[in-house]
Order: sequence, then C-alpha cells, then structure tokens
Amino acid sequence: MSNRMWGGRFASGPAEIMEEINASIGFDKRLAPQDIRGSLAHVAMLGQAGILPAEDVAKIEAGLKTVQGEIEAGSFEFRRELEDIHMSVESRLREIVGPSAGRLHTARSRNDQVATDMRLWVRDTLDALDGQAADLQQAMAELALTHAGTVMPGFTHLQSAQPVTFGHHLLAYVEMLNRDRGRFRDARARLNECPLGAAALAGTSFPIDRHATAASLGFDRPTANSLDSVADRDFALEALSAAAIAAVHLSRFAEEIVVWTSAQFGFVKLSDRFTTGSSIMPQKRNPDAAELVRAKSGRIIGALSGLLIVMKGLPLAYSKDMQEDKEGTFDALQTLSLCLAAMAGMVRDLEPVPEVLKVAAGSGYATATDLADWLVRELGLPFRDAHHVTGRLVGEASSRGIGLEALPLAVMQAEEPRITEAVFAVLGVENSVASRTSYGGTAPDNVRAQAEGWLKRLADETA
Amino acid sequence: MSNRMWGGRFASGPAEIMEEINASIGFDKRLAPQDIRGSLAHVAMLGQAGILPAEDVAKIEAGLKTVQGEIEAGSFEFRRELEDIHMSVESRLREIVGPSAGRLHTARSRNDQVATDMRLWVRDTLDALDGQAADLQQAMAELALTHAGTVMPGFTHLQSAQPVTFGHHLLAYVEMLNRDRGRFRDARARLNECPLGAAALAGTSFPIDRHATAASLGFDRPTANSLDSVADRDFALEALSAAAIAAVHLSRFAEEIVVWTSAQFGFVKLSDRFTTGSSIMPQKRNPDAAELVRAKSGRIIGALSGLLIVMKGLPLAYSKDMQEDKEGTFDALQTLSLCLAAMAGMVRDLEPVPEVLKVAAGSGYATATDLADWLVRELGLPFRDAHHVTGRLVGEASSRGIGLEALPLAVMQAEEPRITEAVFAVLGVENSVASRTSYGGTAPDNVRAQAEGWLKRLADETA
Amino acid sequence: MSNRMWGGRFASGPAEIMEEINASIGFDKRLAPQDIRGSLAHVAMLGQAGILPAEDVAKIEAGLKTVQGEIEAGSFEFRRELEDIHMSVESRLREIVGPSAGRLHTARSRNDQVATDMRLWVRDTLDALDGQAADLQQAMAELALTHAGTVMPGFTHLQSAQPVTFGHHLLAYVEMLNRDRGRFRDARARLNECPLGAAALAGTSFPIDRHATAASLGFDRPTANSLDSVADRDFALEALSAAAIAAVHLSRFAEEIVVWTSAQFGFVKLSDRFTTGSSIMPQKRNPDAAELVRAKSGRIIGALSGLLIVMKGLPLAYSKDMQEDKEGTFDALQTLSLCLAAMAGMVRDLEPVPEVLKVAAGSGYATATDLADWLVRELGLPFRDAHHVTGRLVGEASSRGIGLEALPLAVMQAEEPRITEAVFAVLGVENSVASRTSYGGTAPDNVRAQAEGWLKRLADETA
Amino acid sequence: MSNRMWGGRFASGPAEIMEEINASIGFDKRLAPQDIRGSLAHVAMLGQAGILPAEDVAKIEAGLKTVQGEIEAGSFEFRRELEDIHMSVESRLREIVGPSAGRLHTARSRNDQVATDMRLWVRDTLDALDGQAADLQQAMAELALTHAGTVMPGFTHLQSAQPVTFGHHLLAYVEMLNRDRGRFRDARARLNECPLGAAALAGTSFPIDRHATAASLGFDRPTANSLDSVADRDFALEALSAAAIAAVHLSRFAEEIVVWTSAQFGFVKLSDRFTTGSSIMPQKRNPDAAELVRAKSGRIIGALSGLLIVMKGLPLAYSKDMQEDKEGTFDALQTLSLCLAAMAGMVRDLEPVPEVLKVAAGSGYATATDLADWLVRELGLPFRDAHHVTGRLVGEASSRGIGLEALPLAVMQAEEPRITEAVFAVLGVENSVASRTSYGGTAPDNVRAQAEGWLKRLADETA
Repeated sequence: MSNRMWGGRFASGPAEIMEEINASIGFDKRLAPQDIRGSLAHVAMLGQAGILPAEDVAKIEAGLKTVQGEIEAGSFEFRRELEDIHMSVESRLREIVGPSAGRLHTARSRNDQVATDMRLWVRDTLDALDGQAADLQQAMAELALTHAGTVMPGFTHLQSAQPVTFGHHLLAYVEMLNRDRGRFRDARARLNECPLGAAALAGTSFPIDRHATAASLGFDRPTANSLDSVADRDFALEALSAAAIAAVHLSRFAEEIVVWTSAQFGFVKLSDRFTTGSSIMPQKRNPDAAELVRAKSGRIIGALSGLLIVMKGLPLAYSKDMQEDKEGTFDALQTLSLCLAAMAGMVRDLEPVPEVLKVAAGSGYATATDLADWLVRELGLPFRDAHHVTGRLVGEASSRGIGLEALPLAVMQAEEPRITEAVFAVLGVENSVASRTSYGGTAPDNVRAQAEGWLKRLADETA
Repeated sequence: MSNRMWGGRFASGPAEIMEEINASIGFDKRLAPQDIRGSLAHVAMLGQAGILPAEDVAKIEAGLKTVQGEIEAGSFEFRRELEDIHMSVESRLREIVGPSAGRLHTARSRNDQVATDMRLWVRDTLDALDGQAADLQQAMAELALTHAGTVMPGFTHLQSAQPVTFGHHLLAYVEMLNRDRGRFRDARARLNECPLGAAALAGTSFPIDRHATAASLGFDRPTANSLDSVADRDFALEALSAAAIAAVHLSRFAEEIVVWTSAQFGFVKLSDRFTTGSSIMPQKRNPDAAELVRAKSGRIIGALSGLLIVMKGLPLAYSKDMQEDKEGTFDALQTLSLCLAAMAGMVRDLEPVPEVLKVAAGSGYATATDLADWLVRELGLPFRDAHHVTGRLVGEASSRGIGLEALPLAVMQAEEPRITEAVFAVLGVENSVASRTSYGGTAPDNVRAQAEGWLKRLADETA
Repeated sequence: MSNRMWGGRFASGPAEIMEEINASIGFDKRLAPQDIRGSLAHVAMLGQAGILPAEDVAKIEAGLKTVQGEIEAGSFEFRRELEDIHMSVESRLREIVGPSAGRLHTARSRNDQVATDMRLWVRDTLDALDGQAADLQQAMAELALTHAGTVMPGFTHLQSAQPVTFGHHLLAYVEMLNRDRGRFRDARARLNECPLGAAALAGTSFPIDRHATAASLGFDRPTANSLDSVADRDFALEALSAAAIAAVHLSRFAEEIVVWTSAQFGFVKLSDRFTTGSSIMPQKRNPDAAELVRAKSGRIIGALSGLLIVMKGLPLAYSKDMQEDKEGTFDALQTLSLCLAAMAGMVRDLEPVPEVLKVAAGSGYATATDLADWLVRELGLPFRDAHHVTGRLVGEASSRGIGLEALPLAVMQAEEPRITEAVFAVLGVENSVASRTSYGGTAPDNVRAQAEGWLKRLADETA
Repeated sequence: MSNRMWGGRFASGPAEIMEEINASIGFDKRLAPQDIRGSLAHVAMLGQAGILPAEDVAKIEAGLKTVQGEIEAGSFEFRRELEDIHMSVESRLREIVGPSAGRLHTARSRNDQVATDMRLWVRDTLDALDGQAADLQQAMAELALTHAGTVMPGFTHLQSAQPVTFGHHLLAYVEMLNRDRGRFRDARARLNECPLGAAALAGTSFPIDRHATAASLGFDRPTANSLDSVADRDFALEALSAAAIAAVHLSRFAEEIVVWTSAQFGFVKLSDRFTTGSSIMPQKRNPDAAELVRAKSGRIIGALSGLLIVMKGLPLAYSKDMQEDKEGTFDALQTLSLCLAAMAGMVRDLEPVPEVLKVAAGSGYATATDLADWLVRELGLPFRDAHHVTGRLVGEASSRGIGLEALPLAVMQAEEPRITEAVFAVLGVENSVASRTSYGGTAPDNVRAQAEGWLKRLADETA
C-alpha cells in the first residue's frame, strides 16, 4: 500500500503537500508592484500620523524601493517557504533595513494588504482593457467609415434577410464594446475604495488616517466596514462578469470571421498575419486567431463560474478559500486582453470583398420586404394584401430566374395596376439600404454619420 | 425499430416535435403586459407620425386594451399553435378589430418587439430587486443598530480571531447589498435604450419617430444600431451577473445562519416561521429557508452560465438560439427576488443570544492582538518583541486556565516591567472592540453611526 | 418603508414566503409514479418481514393503487400546504384507509424515500435517453449508408482540407452517440442501488429486508451506507454530466446544419417540417430547430453547473439544499430528450445536395495531400521534396485555373520526370476518398461496412 | 491614438500577438513524454508495415531517444517560434538524424498526434487519480475501523438528528470515492482507443497497421472513424466531469473539517502539519488545507464548464479552438490530485475527540426516534400515538433538564403503562447506534464489518 501513499508526486509527505497547496508565491508574485506601492502609501501615512518616527519611515521607504528595484531587475529571489508576496517582500526588507522592517506591519495585516493589492491590480487591468476596447472600437469605426456603403446580406438564422452595409454590421460591435467599456468603468468605480487599515478584520486601535492612504493610492475613499473589507471579492467577480460578456461579444465576431473566410462565403480576406497556411494548399488560410478568440470565451466564463463557486457559502470574514481568487482572475483578464489585441489586429487586417458581398446581398429576393413596404407606404395596401402581391411577384421573378429589380413594370402592373416606375427606387440592394433611414437604420448616410461620431468621440477621449 | 422512433414522447412525429421545441408561448406569455405596453406606444407613434390614420390608431388602441383586460381577467386563451405572445396578441386583436390589426405591425417585426418586451421586463424586475435589496438593508441596519455593542467573535477560517460586534457583522452585508444595488442600477441604466423600430434588423423606410416611442416607454433614448438592437442580450446577461453576485452574498449569510443555529454554536435563534421542526424533537429547528437560500445561488449561477453559453459564437443578427434567453432569466431573477424576501424575513426574525456570543468572543485569547498592539503603541516595543511578550503572557494565562484580563498586573510586569494598569483597558472583549476606532472599525460608536447613517440614507431614498 | 416590505409579491409576510421557498409539491409531483412504486415495494417488504400484519399491508396496497388511479386520472388534488409529493400521497392515503396509513412510514423517512424516487426517475429517463440516442444513431447510419460514397469537403478550421464522404461525416456522430450511450449506461449501472431503508440517516432497528425492496424495484442491491444513501446526489450529477456532453455533440451537428443550409453553403436541404419560412421570401428556410438544439446545450450545461454548486461544501447527511436537485435535473434531461427527438427528425428530413458537395470537395486543391502522399509512397521522395513538387504543381494548376487532375502529364513530368499516368488514380475527389482505406478512413467501402455494422448492431439490440 | 494601439503589451504588432495567441509550446511541452512515446510506436509500425526502411526506423528511434534524454535532463530548448511540442521534437530530431526525420511524419498529422498525446496523458492521470482515491479510501477505512464504535451526532440541516458512529460517517465518503473511482475507470475504458492513423482527418492511403500502433501504446483498439478521431475531446470532458464530482465530495468533507475544528464544535483536531497558526494565539489552528480543498472545487468545475463551452457548436473536424483543451485539463486534474493528497494527509492527521462527540450525540434528545420506534415495534402503538407519547416524555425530561435515558421508569409508565425496563436498551446513544442493525445502518458491528471489507478489498487490489 505504501507505494500508493501520497499519490506518488508527494513522496515526502505532509510537509510537501501542505507547502504545495498552501503557498501562493508562485502566482501572487505578480502583485509585487502593487504590494510595494501599498506599503509605500501605508508607511508614509504611519509617519504623517505620528505612529512611526520619520527615520523609520525613511529607512523603510528606501528599503522598499531597493526591493522594487531588485524585482524589476529580475534579481529578487522568490522562495516558496516564504509562502506569499507579502512575506517575501517583508523578509527581504528586513535583510536590508533590519528590525525596523517589522514596524511596517503596524496597523495592518496580510488580509487587508492582499485585498488592497488585488484591487490595485484589477483596477489597473480594467483601465488597460478599457483602452484596448477603445482601440478595437477605433479599428472597427475606421473600417466602418470606409465601408459605410458596402452592401452585404443582413442575416437572421444565417439566412440572408435584408441587405445592410458592412459598416453598419461593424458598428453593431462598436455598440457592444461601448457597453463593455461601460461595465469596465462601472466596475472600476465600484471597486475604487481602499481596504487598507481594516487590519485582520476588526479595524485597529492605532490612530491611522485611512483617508490619506486611500487618497495616495488613487482610491476615492476608504472602505466603510472592516469585515467587508477583507471578506469581499466583488471587485474580481464584477470584473470577471464584465470580461465574460465582452468575451462573448468577441466570440460572435470571431465566429463570423471563421464563417466569412470559408471558401463558401468568401466575404472577407485575412492575410497570413492572422492565419496559418499549408505548404501545399496555397488557398488554405486557417483563421486560427479567430478560432482561438472564439474558444477563449470558454476559459473566461469558466473563471467567472469558478470564483462564484469559491465564494458561495463562505462565512465572514477571511477564509483561505479566497486565495483562489488570484489565478483565475489573472488568467481571465489577461486572456481578454490578448483577445482584444488579436481582434483589433484582425480588424485592421480584414479586407471585405465587395463584389461577393453585393451578389450575396441581392440573392434570395432579399428586397422583397422593401417591395411589400412600398406597397403599404405608397399605395396604402393593407399588410396582408401587400404580402400577397409581393409573394406572387417573387414567384414570377423566381420562375424567370431573375431578381425583382429586373421584372418589367408591365409584369408588376399585371399583378397590381397602381405600381409605378417609382417602385424600382426600392428594389436592388443599393436602393434598399439607402431607404432604411430610420434612426439606427442601415442607410449609408446614417452609417457614415455614426462612424464619424464614434471616431470623434474616441478622439475626444484621448485628447 | 419503429417503436423506438421519436423516443416515445413524440409519437406523432415531426410536427409535434417542431411545435414542442419551437413554441415559446408556454413561457413568453409572461411578457403579455410588456408586449401590449410596447404595442400601445408603437401605434400611438405611428399615428403621430402620420403613418397610420387616426381611426386605425383608435381602433387598435381600444382593441389592445380589450386584450389586456382579457389577459388580466384570465379569460384569454393562449394557444400553442400561435407560437408566441406576439402572434397570440395580434391574432386576438384581429378577431376584435378586423384587418386594421395588421397595420400595427407596420415598421416593426417580432425581432425588435421581443427585444423591447424583454428589456421592459428586466427593467421592471431590476427595479423590484433594488427595492427588495433596500428592504433587506433596512432590516439589517435596524438589527445592527440594536446590536451595535453586542460583542461576538470575529472569525477568520471559522476560528475566532478578534472580537467584533454583531451590528458590525450585519453592516458588512449592508455594504455588499449596496454594491449589489449599484450593479442593478448600472445594469438598468445601460439597458434603458429602446430597440423598437429596428424592425427585422436593418431599420425601416417608414418615417417613424423612434425617440417618441422610446420616451413614451420610459427609455432614455432609442438604440443606435438596428443590428445590435435585435442581436443583443447584454441586458439579460448583465442582470444575471448582478443577480449571481448578489446570490453569492446571500449564500454567505445563509451559511452563517445554518452554522450559528447549530446546537454547537447557538449564536442566534430563528423562530418556527423560518424553520421546520420535528414532532418529537422539540429542540430541532431546521433552518430550511436559510439552506434553500444558500442552495439557490447554484441555480442563479447556472442560469448565468447557461445564457453566456447560448450567446457564445452566434453570428449577427437574430438567431433562434436567442429565444433561450427567457426561461433562465425569468427563473433566476425571480429566484433572487424570493431569496431576498426570505432573507429579509429571517433577519427580522433573528434573535442573537448575547451571552453566548460574548463568551465565544472572549475565548481563545481573542484579545491577544490588542495586548500586542498596546505594547507597540504605548511602550514602543518593536512588533517582534511585542509578539514575544504576548505569547508568553497568553501561555501563562492558559496554564492558569484564565483569560488575559484576569492575569494579575504583577505577572505581566514580570514579563515586561513597563506594563501598567492601563493595559487592562484593552483586554476584555468590550474594551477590545471599543478600541477599534479606526474608520470602518468595529468600535460600537462607529457601528452605531454607520447603522444610523444607513437608516437615514434608506429613509431619504423613499422620502 | 412598509410598502417596500417583503418586496411586494410577498405581501402577507413570513408564512407565504416560507411556503413559497419551502414547498416542493409544485415540481416533485412529477415523482408521483415513482413514489407510489417505492411505497408499494416498501409495504410489501414490511409484510413479508413480519413488521406489518397482512391486513394492514393489503389495505395500504389497495389505498396506494386508488391514489395512483386518481393521479393518473388527473382527479388528485395537489395542495401546497402538504409541501411535497410524499406528504400529499400519505395524506390522501390516510383519507382512504384511515390510521393504518401511518404504518407505511415504518422504518423509512422522507430522506430515503425521496432519494429512491429520484433514482427511479433518473434511471427511467436514462433508459429513455439511451433509446432515443439509438434511434438517432439509426437515422444517421441509414443516411450514412445511402451516402457512403457521396463526396464532400472534409473541413479543418471550416476550410476545405481533404475530401471525405457524407456518410463518413455522419458516422463520426454515430461514434459520439455511442460514447454518450456508454455514459448513460454506466451512470445507470452506478446509480442502481436502493437507498430505501436508510431511514432518516442512521438505518433502522426494524428487521427490514433491504435486499428484498431493492430487488422488487429493479435495483441491483441496496446502498451500503445509510448516511451516504440520503446525502448523495451523484446519480443526478453523473446523469447531467453525460447529458451535457451529449448536448455538446448535438450542438456541433446543429451548427453544421445551420451553416450547411445557408445560401452560401447550400450543402443540404431541410423541409419546412423543421424550418420556418417567410410569406414573401420563398427561399428563406430558417433552421429554427437546429438553432434551438444548438442553444439548449447552454441550458443543460447550466443545470450541471447549478447542481454541482448546490452540492459544493454541504456537510452530511441531508440538508434542505438538496431539494434543489429536482427542477434542474428534470428540465435538463427532458431538454436533452427533446433535442434528441428533434435531431432524429432533422436527420430523417435532411437531403444532401451531392452536386454542390462534390464541387466543394474538389475546390481549393483539396487533393494536394494525395499527390504528395503518392510521390512519397510510389517514388520514395522524402516528404520535404514531395511537398516542394506538389506546391509547384498546385501553383501551375492554379495559374491555369484548373484542377490538379486536369494538369497534363507532361507538365507534371517537367517538374518530376518519374511521375506516371498512375498518379491520376489519386487525383480527383472520388479517387482521393477511395484511396483512404486505412482502418477508420473515409474510403466508401469502409464507410459502407461501418454503416452496415452499426445498423446490424442496432437491430441486434432491439431483437 | 497610436499609443493605445495593440493595448500596450503588444507593442510590436501583429506578429507578436499572433505568436502569443497561437503558440501552445508554453503548455503542451508537458506532453513531451507522450509525444515521443507515440512517435516511437508510430515509427516501429511504419517499419513493420514496410512503409519505412529499417535503417530509417533505427535512426529515427535512436534520435527520438536522444531527444527524450535531453528533455528528461532539462537540456532541451523549447522555442516559441516552433509553436508546439510536435514541431519542437521533430525539429530537434532533424538536427540529430537529418532529413530522415521527415519520414516520421508519414501517414500521420499533428491532428491525430495531439489527440493521441492527450489521451495518453489523461489516461495516465486517471490511473494516478484512481490510485490516490484508493489511498484516501484506505486512510478513511483505517480510521473508520478504529472509530467504528465512536458515537457522534448524525446531522440533518447541521442539526443533530440521530446518533451515528464516526466510522460510519467516514465510510460514507469511502462509498463516494468508490463511485469516483468507478467514473475514473469508466472514463479510462471509454477513452482507450487510439486515434493515431486518422491523419489530418480522412485516414490515409498508406498501408498502415493501426491495430499494431494501438496495441503497442496500450490502447484496446484503434478509433473507428477518422473524423471523430481528430474532432473528439470527450475523453477530456468525461475526465473533467468525474473530477468535478470528486472535487465536490472532497469539498463536503473539507467543510466538515472546517466546521468540526471550530472552537464551537471541537469535534476533531488537526495538527500543525495541515493548519497554520498565530504566534500570539496558541489555540488558533487555521484549517488552511481544508479550506483550499473546499475552494478548489470551484476551479475544477470552472474548467469543466470552460471546455464544454469551447466544444459547443464546433463543426467537424479539427478547429483551432480545440487547442484550448489543454491548460484547463492539465490544471484541473492536477488540482484534484493535490486535493486528494491533501485530504489523505488530513485524514491520517485527524484526531476525533470522542468525549466531545459523545456529549454532542446525546444532546437534543437525539434518541427520541429510538423511543418512538420502540413503542411501535414492541408495543404495537400506531406511529401517531407513539410520537405523541414520545413528545410528552421528551417534554418531561426537558423540564427536568435530563436526558431521556435518565427518566425513571415510573415516569414513563405514567404516560404509557406498558413501557418496561427493556426500553432503556434503546435509550442512550450507545444503545441507539447499536440498534441500527439494518443493512447499511450505523450499528458498530456493521461499521466494523464494512471497514474491514473495504480494507480487504483495497489490499486485494494491490496484491
């Protein structure tokens, strides 16, 4: 039996297993910059509040900067027996500045410290994601402006339904990204409270100035309840929720790229910068990047589920379960970052094929709705009658193997005598899209105005 | 083989299967009020814009109100062959007002209609959830005020760490609920754009006034892109995300209620209004309601995952997949509503047992941190030394079987001569909590002020 | 504030909320047949073991059959105040047979009773799903046999890679379904232990014969540990896991149907039995059923996640949380049943379009691999050289706008003199697929044999 | 705008992004042993089948072993531009043996190669998990044997319901683990088919012997359909499902450890090998390992969801999305391995506190059910009457502040004259558990026999 014990990998028994399951330094070392930033703010406040003498503050500040330098230079040694980033930094600080290092831990604990570090990391990352989403909007709006009048089929059920323009289609995603950015910003605003000073869980008896620490770290205010401060992981959950929805948006465009680059659709082309090929099949352009963007939505949704499950049913305040917030959050938000970058790259690389799109837009009598609407609007036919007439004319055109716009007027009038030449203004895909001038509709002038509006807004943001 | 065909339940073949999988009337009839509300706004706009003559508008409005009355009275017959709520209402309208009914469908389609209905339903529900969360905050803040000074153990790892007050613990949940409410409100604000007028997907050539429709339905503005209008289900995803996080919060307090009402903890009592008992074991009070609240987080998280999966990889614009948005969203948001109501009921029913809480708060030398902090703060001992002294004094008290506050001063001074009578002001759980006066800390005066602040804020909201 | 209390829907306060959250009769009434079946087995055993007198047994059996009749006839009244199906049946039994009814509950409790009911329901449902999956295999294998030699493009990345046959493609799903069926059967075998007699959680002091009850209900044996018997929901989790994987399989074929029925692909046709159309666009055939099958994978995966979350972290033995096992399991397994039926219907309705498939199979120099393999196999060229030659010949054909099979031999020999007429035997899609005779390969003879093998296996199963 | 482009991290543009999103070498290098093992089997078969000359086979075999040695020695250089493990090994092989290296790729592709590698890895890991689960069963059965008669409260709703024994409680988990192991084994059996030889997707025209390759890699047979072979990831999904259920089981015992080690319960003790302490609070033993095991169920369930989502809606055969199967599967299965090791360590470390358990078992009139059962069984009272009498006797005992077993016989007889001395044989927790002799019940002799049965079975397995 003994050879089975500890399952092989853990031959040396409890100590190794405990270290393996317990230590977080393998992944929380990523929080080093945030950890040092938090410590610098904390020690400065301790000095200002008269809790630490100025000389200790100076020593600790200098020491922390040395540690920071070592980490940036890659010369810092992370050791698993020091368990986490906080202990690692503090231990090195002690080597550098001696026992004063211990004073840094006055009026705080690892519980509020890690909550602060994670908030800072998530905040930084949300800001970066917002910027990347804006960049993707920019790429899409630029392409939309170029193709404000390029007609393509508008699909329902992947069946051609009505013509739209390529620019209009792209701007649908700009709208989605706008909501994504709104969620990133709302999440950022809601998390922007500083937990430092909650200490282990109850607050502290030292006369600390939490408002000062909060301000110096760019937080809007300190958190209002010390238990909540160390027990809460909403900031990660909300960021992951926003990321999951954004990832789903990207998966939709990714699916479209995969379908559109198929030989059967041939709607767009991607260069070999975002595809992989075959040495012997020169036409083959595998849209690997799009497929990976589509797939990675699974990983991000999985991370969201995972952390919701971790937090389910946890009593207050801190439980070790909460250490599981890190890897999933790091991975999911960075995965989204990569997907946004890849998608922006693909959009800038994408070339629609207008002639293919136009033919596809016109097939399947996609302007039948336009004809029916014209009969209602111009001749006052009731819907039911208009549909009846339209159905018969489509049938006629179909039996002749031509489009509606190629049906002679006389043939139309045989069906409904009041039809005039004017009807041709709504047949044909160009006319169809031009007629959809309702707010938000696909008329090229609408699309152009929307695209320009977005570009202006984006430019204003960075001005 | 034939007896296996269609798997038994579907003996009559394709038609029955197609109807069973395709029809949504079984669940979307819940949208009847929203559907009629949307139609009334639409037809009024069609009249104002001169698209429909006033007499048609009047007939349709009267007819819709008749239908509404029938639905409210329960006399409306929903038939599965009419497939969905939109067809059901329109079909009945036609029976009542004749062919004019068909004109209602001018410049709209089922795609924008159902998107509008669902937004209205989710918006109403978010408002209701916000109100219920406020009610739960109210219940908690009232109980927190009563127990602002009731000491209890503050736990980490379910091990007593430092004393806190019962009121302070409750206010941690008030904070969580405040973030939940913020998410409900942000979701509401973001969804509050009107998709009506997007028509099937491309907009329309009728001169409709989408701003008017939007305004009359209480939306802030019309949606800006017709494809996005019918292809988007962000409003449901975001509401479900917010609901999932809120459900996790409730699961945490539910877990605490389950643990606290165990015979071993005995921290609180719940009456038989929220528990079930045993006819022969009178002490048994099963916290069924709390367990169900804890469990229902699973259902809500599952619904969120489910809809994210449905939307993953869907090409624009409308696909039938999106019909799957309804049942999960209806069920999850109403489940959260029930959980909020049950939790508010339990909080109002809950009686803490102060004497048990206090004994528990004082056990395990939970004020050792206070002693160490005092040594640092008052005597200027470095942390390491303070911890050393504290450890020895705890050991001494432990070997005598008494609390720290019962150690004679002389014994303390034997360990560290500079300790004075003043130290007793931080020992004992009452003193400990009183000393945690940092912002957000557990000092009873803090807690009282926070609870009063919340009650005032809640009163102002409804004023 | 009061108008906000209980959130509106729950105006009458605690009693109504508790009933709403606690009562399961609304959904567990579906277990009535299983509940009565279990009771009949239990009471018969109590009689045989001499625990109940024969006359009581007879009375109770007759009473249970009366109740069963009432339920089947739809005349049974389910009342929410009786909370669940067990109480409902027992209460009605008492009305019919008087106080003897109470003896039925000897040596059992609601905990082991509901566990038994659910196992019976899941077992029945797994059997039905196995039969439906077999029916779908049957439909696919029949179509595969018909189209064992119909060439189509084999895709990677939705890019044509190598020709395969339509039958071969279908048989890939037959393999997936075979694994699904294996999982259904393994789950059934593992759950087939009877928990009745575990009583509340500890077993009983009555001299019951659990083996007899188990046998009479078709279980392989009684469960071996009474705590596990009432605390376990593995049977539902495993069934949901198997269902989720099966749903993913169906979603893949559903996606293919959606893509293949697009105008751009045009690979297959579905009749209007499984599509919906447009009164004015006669070509439009929306593949609604396929889209819904694709989407419903989300609901089933969500149910699996939901129940895993419910069970996470629950202490033994029974907790009320476990009541949440029912709705999700009922819904998910029945959803899968509907999806299997819909898919079998679609497969029987599906008509591939061989001429479109063949053209698509041959485009994009999909037989380039065959040429390279021929050069390696017949001429002994190293791979690298073979790819080099092939690339140049594809380039030549491409510049001439013809397929590889249309290149004159002389042109080929100019590139590699040892090429002979024999090479044409591998060019052309028919030759390509015919050459893939390795086990599991797409050669029509292979495919035919596989399809016939499946049909024989399926026929044997039901013989 | 330019400073926002590519989102900062990807300053150098498309090439870097594509490499970052596309390359899998960072994680699939873990498959190196499986990859080389597969290649060795493949090349041997190519030799035996006469497809490669013996000298090439010998060269390639020697070269592969050299590569294997370099990887084991850590001297192998993985380069991201070589993208994945297959290219990395092949490229190095070419350096070592020259152009012959290219012949290894005859009649296979990366698609069947990676499918084989992953199956081998999952198979090895399932075997290891099975062994670890057996080790945990062993630890639990040993402790169960020791504590077959140690009484403790059996809980429902975390309320004491009936006494059970500690051994019985542990054996409930042994049953769960047995089902887990059954799932691991079923998954292993189902995946044990060899995809090598499916080539890119269509099979091959080389006369390969797939049965030989399958046999030499320990597979039961080759896969039967080449499309399914490269498109399937069931083996990972099923392994993840089994892992998720197992993780939920572990989370339940982990929760119990957390609750039981609380000061309020004090049911068991864990040494500092699996807890962390506090330098100044010597009683504090934070059950970190148990909390992490509880939490990690979230990560594993998240990975399962994630991969189900990745596979949803993917058309056949290979899509790049499927590269996302690796990281989640690696992480989740190894996480479960760690959790099993940690739990086995904790079980071996765990010390129940019999005196605390016994007092808890007897409190709350937990033997009231025994009394009622006795009245039914021995005196033939109907249940209703038995419950009535019991309720009154419990009330009497409660008002005297004593247990049922301490009530004088005369007091009992005053309530029900037929009660005799014999009743005391079922009162008291020892008697209660001893009486539960039904199969699977908690009687110590039952428990001892079950524990011994398990230990024998486990010993036989490894004999």
